[in-house]
Amino acid sequence: MTEQYLLDPARQPTLAGVERAAQKVAAILPSTPLLPLAIEGKTVWCKAECLQPIGAFKIRGGWHRLTDLNVEQRKNGVVAFSSGNHAQGVAWAARRLDVPATIIMPEDAPKAKLANTKALGAKVITYDRMSGAREQLAADISRETGAVVVPSFDDPWIVEGQGSCGLEIREQMMAQIGSEPDQIIACCGGGGLASGSALANPEAKIVVVEPEGWDDMKRSLAGGKIVPVKNDPPETDCDALQTLLVSPITFDILRERKVEGVAVSIAEVHNAMRVAFEQLQLVVEPGGAVALAAALAGKISVTNNTAITLSGGNVDNDLFARVIAGS
Amino acid sequence: MTEQYLLDPARQPTLAGVERAAQKVAAILPSTPLLPLAIEGKTVWCKAECLQPIGAFKIRGGWHRLTDLNVEQRKNGVVAFSSGNHAQGVAWAARRLDVPATIIMPEDAPKAKLANTKALGAKVITYDRMSGAREQLAADISRETGAVVVPSFDDPWIVEGQGSCGLEIREQMMAQIGSEPDQIIACCGGGGLASGSALANPEAKIVVVEPEGWDDMKRSLAGGKIVPVKNDPPETDCDALQTLLVSPITFDILRERKVEGVAVSIAEVHNAMRVAFEQLQLVVEPGGAVALAAALAGKISVTNNTAITLSGGNVDNDLFARVIAGS
Repeated sequence: MTEQYLLDPARQPTLAGVERAAQKVAAILPSTPLLPLAIEGKTVWCKAECLQPIGAFKIRGGWHRLTDLNVEQRKNGVVAFSSGNHAQGVAWAARRLDVPATIIMPEDAPKAKLANTKALGAKVITYDRMSGAREQLAADISRETGAVVVPSFDDPWIVEGQGSCGLEIREQMMAQIGSEPDQIIACCGGGGLASGSALANPEAKIVVVEPEGWDDMKRSLAGGKIVPVKNDPPETDCDALQTLLVSPITFDILRERKVEGVAVSIAEVHNAMRVAFEQLQLVVEPGGAVALAAALAGKISVTNNTAITLSGGNVDNDLFARVIAGS
Repeated sequence: MTEQYLLDPARQPTLAGVERAAQKVAAILPSTPLLPLAIEGKTVWCKAECLQPIGAFKIRGGWHRLTDLNVEQRKNGVVAFSSGNHAQGVAWAARRLDVPATIIMPEDAPKAKLANTKALGAKVITYDRMSGAREQLAADISRETGAVVVPSFDDPWIVEGQGSCGLEIREQMMAQIGSEPDQIIACCGGGGLASGSALANPEAKIVVVEPEGWDDMKRSLAGGKIVPVKNDPPETDCDALQTLLVSPITFDILRERKVEGVAVSIAEVHNAMRVAFEQLQLVVEPGGAVALAAALAGKISVTNNTAITLSGGNVDNDLFARVIAGS
């Protein structure tokens, strides 16, 4: 594989790319813990990505993408659109590399995510989530400023970067129990984490989990072609997973692996947040708890070599308080 | 140092003993993360002991002590008294080693701690916290059954075991930023964690933090001799730190190191719990948040090589919900 190939934006993400991303990530970020949790007589392994410096796994893709920008690109900066976690990932990497960053965020994003993204020094522009105009906004900014667009999943670097999480899971499970994951249950918005982790674990069964009504990846995989979220999707706490349409770059990887999707209710998500609070002492946001929710609800049967992503923990205080108090 | 010496219950804890404990702990428990947090323009390093399998650092001392029991002792079992975290640490080690465990707990201990200790298979006996009769109860059980008493801090194994936390901090800070801690701010009940971490870090400044009204270690260190908690101490959320009297084994180590104590208010503790929730995505119990509280309140000036123990995260849902909602 040539250096040229690695820097081609139209390339497909690869295991070699995931390994390269993992090396870059490991150079600046210690592994997040892989924590045991008992479910129905089995011990599953929860990957606590909510403990990343930005509170979510998205720091991985942001770092892998931005460190591969050339000198000219770094000068012109980057533009990204995101409900909040990718925003913070790109803003964190941009600040560390001294790259100007503009982030387009939905106006109803959690206050914590908006505030944190601004605190990381990014220029934040808000938009109406359901209008779907964010791609156009990003393209306009890119044309005006020369900034590189950093999509939240539809990009080979992003998939590879998120896949470094799957590689860490594999290495940690080997170190902790002496065997590899046979199943990875991943939270799924656009599918970057799931598809990257699939590349990192060629032998593992991959399951993707989405909130009910936002289960377009599930329906796409079941039907063999990409379909969007249905009209008028329900309200959800899972702001991180409100992707209206996935992309071939993630879908094709998951389809080839015969991945199945599962949808979880908001009550199941809240239960998972309470379990993570009570038994793991972790703060997990709704969108970061869907994979655990599916396992706890018995919608996926677990093994002693099952890994579950707890992919983010950026949740507003009042919502978290209501959830753990059970009201 | 002979094997004989290492197994003498009247011995003093040593750095060599801490290193031995750390090896035993590392063999079964991955290091908890050392997470960066910005305070007043500095980056401090928070040791997330709330992520241990029992939700607190106490698993360290329990494991170090119980693994050094001989065959006869293991058969007769162990007895411990604890507000909850030491209880779980001993119960966890006992279950793993198939040793019978009786734990004496205050009747007003957090529900989560009582339930978790029972779930770990220990026999739980409750007592009235302010009566101070727990030592007698433990002695009676020991005489009747031959069980070994495992104190929560007044014991060389326990100090060395907790000190493995300080050794991990040192190794992780070296790996993450290339230098050792110059200051460790430790939550303090009986002083096991602080004195063990002092042994593990001979060059570091050690600061101990207690809740207001329960600051007997602070007053003992200031006066050069052990004094108890004053009569009618205030109510506190910090159930893990309600030690009425410290012991020479921990006090002497801290006095020799010229350690100073700091006391924090309950409002300062709650603020620290909110910061850990919002910025670290961690659930920290009141007693586990006092060290961070002192740093955030400006009662201790921090450096870029300061480590702060977040020593436990076993807190009831309703209390945590009230604290993070700010009411």
